[in-house]
Amino acid sequence: MGLNQEINKKMRRINIVLMGFGHVGRAFLQVVREKSELCRVHYGLDFRVCSVFRSAGALYSPLSLDLDGVLESSASSPDKLDWKPDLELPAALEALDPGVFVECIASSSTSGQPGLNHIRGALDRGWHVVTADKSPLVVDFRGLRRRAEKSHVSLKFSGATAAALPTLDVALYSLAGAEISRIEGILNGTTNFILTRMKQAKSYPEALEEAQSKGIAEPDPSLDVSGQDTRSKLLIISNAVLHTDFSLQDIKIEGIEDISPELLNQGMRENRALKLLGRVYKKGKTFKPEVVLSVIDRSHPLFGVDGAEKGITFITDTMGSITVIGGKSDPRGAAAALLKDTLNIYRI
Amino acid sequence: MGLNQEINKKMRRINIVLMGFGHVGRAFLQVVREKSELCRVHYGLDFRVCSVFRSAGALYSPLSLDLDGVLESSASSPDKLDWKPDLELPAALEALDPGVFVECIASSSTSGQPGLNHIRGALDRGWHVVTADKSPLVVDFRGLRRRAEKSHVSLKFSGATAAALPTLDVALYSLAGAEISRIEGILNGTTNFILTRMKQAKSYPEALEEAQSKGIAEPDPSLDVSGQDTRSKLLIISNAVLHTDFSLQDIKIEGIEDISPELLNQGMRENRALKLLGRVYKKGKTFKPEVVLSVIDRSHPLFGVDGAEKGITFITDTMGSITVIGGKSDPRGAAAALLKDTLNIYRI
Repeated sequence: MGLNQEINKKMRRINIVLMGFGHVGRAFLQVVREKSELCRVHYGLDFRVCSVFRSAGALYSPLSLDLDGVLESSASSPDKLDWKPDLELPAALEALDPGVFVECIASSSTSGQPGLNHIRGALDRGWHVVTADKSPLVVDFRGLRRRAEKSHVSLKFSGATAAALPTLDVALYSLAGAEISRIEGILNGTTNFILTRMKQAKSYPEALEEAQSKGIAEPDPSLDVSGQDTRSKLLIISNAVLHTDFSLQDIKIEGIEDISPELLNQGMRENRALKLLGRVYKKGKTFKPEVVLSVIDRSHPLFGVDGAEKGITFITDTMGSITVIGGKSDPRGAAAALLKDTLNIYRI
Repeated sequence: MGLNQEINKKMRRINIVLMGFGHVGRAFLQVVREKSELCRVHYGLDFRVCSVFRSAGALYSPLSLDLDGVLESSASSPDKLDWKPDLELPAALEALDPGVFVECIASSSTSGQPGLNHIRGALDRGWHVVTADKSPLVVDFRGLRRRAEKSHVSLKFSGATAAALPTLDVALYSLAGAEISRIEGILNGTTNFILTRMKQAKSYPEALEEAQSKGIAEPDPSLDVSGQDTRSKLLIISNAVLHTDFSLQDIKIEGIEDISPELLNQGMRENRALKLLGRVYKKGKTFKPEVVLSVIDRSHPLFGVDGAEKGITFITDTMGSITVIGGKSDPRGAAAALLKDTLNIYRI
């Protein structure tokens, strides 16, 4: 199809409100700016970011923020931007024609707040929601889904389930009609990086230090190395794809901080690898979820997934086994996942 | 969501007309029968197969064929079914409320017929089309897309591009908004099986014979081993995903029948593998497609794709590299891909 033909398609103007102005939030604004023409030409969508919230206030412009200005200032002097300290999210959502509320903050893993209230508020006001924030989904998956259904809007969260690696899309779209009996994933790049280095005979502290110096591991790596991050992603994927209703306490976890010498030795053998797997599988009539440190061999579809890479395998009845590997783990990859979800909401 | 809640959703009744009563066509009927409840409960879709065409006539029942009866007879005595020799496809399509026309015959690779006319006729009559038949798409991709747009219906063809391995879905849905600069795939299971056996020191004739005895290779394997099947799939994927306009003569091919001893030796080395790759990559402002026999090493994302398995890698700007591997290659896998496309047409 020629460009002109495509541009002549009816263009839809879509308002976006962004919550979160950290690495991912800014990367999202960059990607939206960079892909603005592509979104208009190939998808007929004219995205307007009308408001950006951070803890210290909000930018707001009902027609559209000037993304060039916002992004330029954000690098050098973000505080010089016109942050309105008193603007509250509900007021912004009510003043604008409902579009997409994009959320990328890190809420509390126990209460899901403040993201949970933000998302509830957006759904109840008829806004579609795209989020990279795991905790609200972990805490109240069913409740949020119900609110989205009630308001006839979409709730999408690729960014919370391994970001640029397509996990939910593949399960829900590419495997539509197939029954999935098992999902198994390497869902955390940090732990996989550390385990890969340990396979190369580094010690755990050495491997962790390297991961931190490369920006792969956080200064406080505990959420990753304890298996908690893998558990949150597994929970969300399972509840979304398999219609389970797990909460965190249903999923036992293993971490990689304290690997027994025995297990480590097994993993060091040729044609073997030690991997932190999040998996859920059918046992009788129910599904059983777990995060386990496992020695896998060459026949395992995730055997070659090394370094900070991630991967996921689905075992189905009609389509066999499908494995997806890769996807950028950086803020730009997460931002691209947010944009993808936003585009797919309006796909015809 | 509870079952009852889901069942209460508005159910849509969708008519299906099937063209093709070979292995894939029958497997499609089986899968539709087997998944009937799942389609109703989870997708709100009540599929009714109203007509089945084969070369010797058609079954037709405007309310719905009795799939149990059709499938039972089809195994033992298909000729006893009530085949109407004079019913033509256009008449059936016009007599029924438009739904989905599912086509799974093998049309001529040069003319695209008879599939091309069937598909054109269905699109022009307002039927969505789901097809596993490559040739009509190879011969007239743009024309068919234009007809579908004109009639505001969907044209879907996962079954023609590696079946249960999701190639198009991942590119068009999971990578929405990302720009793809390179696609590389092991798109033909037969050649990959033969090459895998040759790596295990079998000769080409031995490997081919094994593939034939296992039902992986056709009695006449020439479309596969010459690289033509890979070329057709590559052409369709590229034209659909990258908006190219390739025809067969634009894509040079290599086959696996006559591998030079040199290349074979290179492929036999440790940490090396000889693979038949269909690939298309950006060169300046245009895309260059080719089917090449290549020696790849362990760093290649498709290195571990062995036996009759298939795989595809997408290199993108914002999401990095994404690889999908697996998917059943048998008639049931192809049938599941047809059902998936059918379900996704009606996805909200």
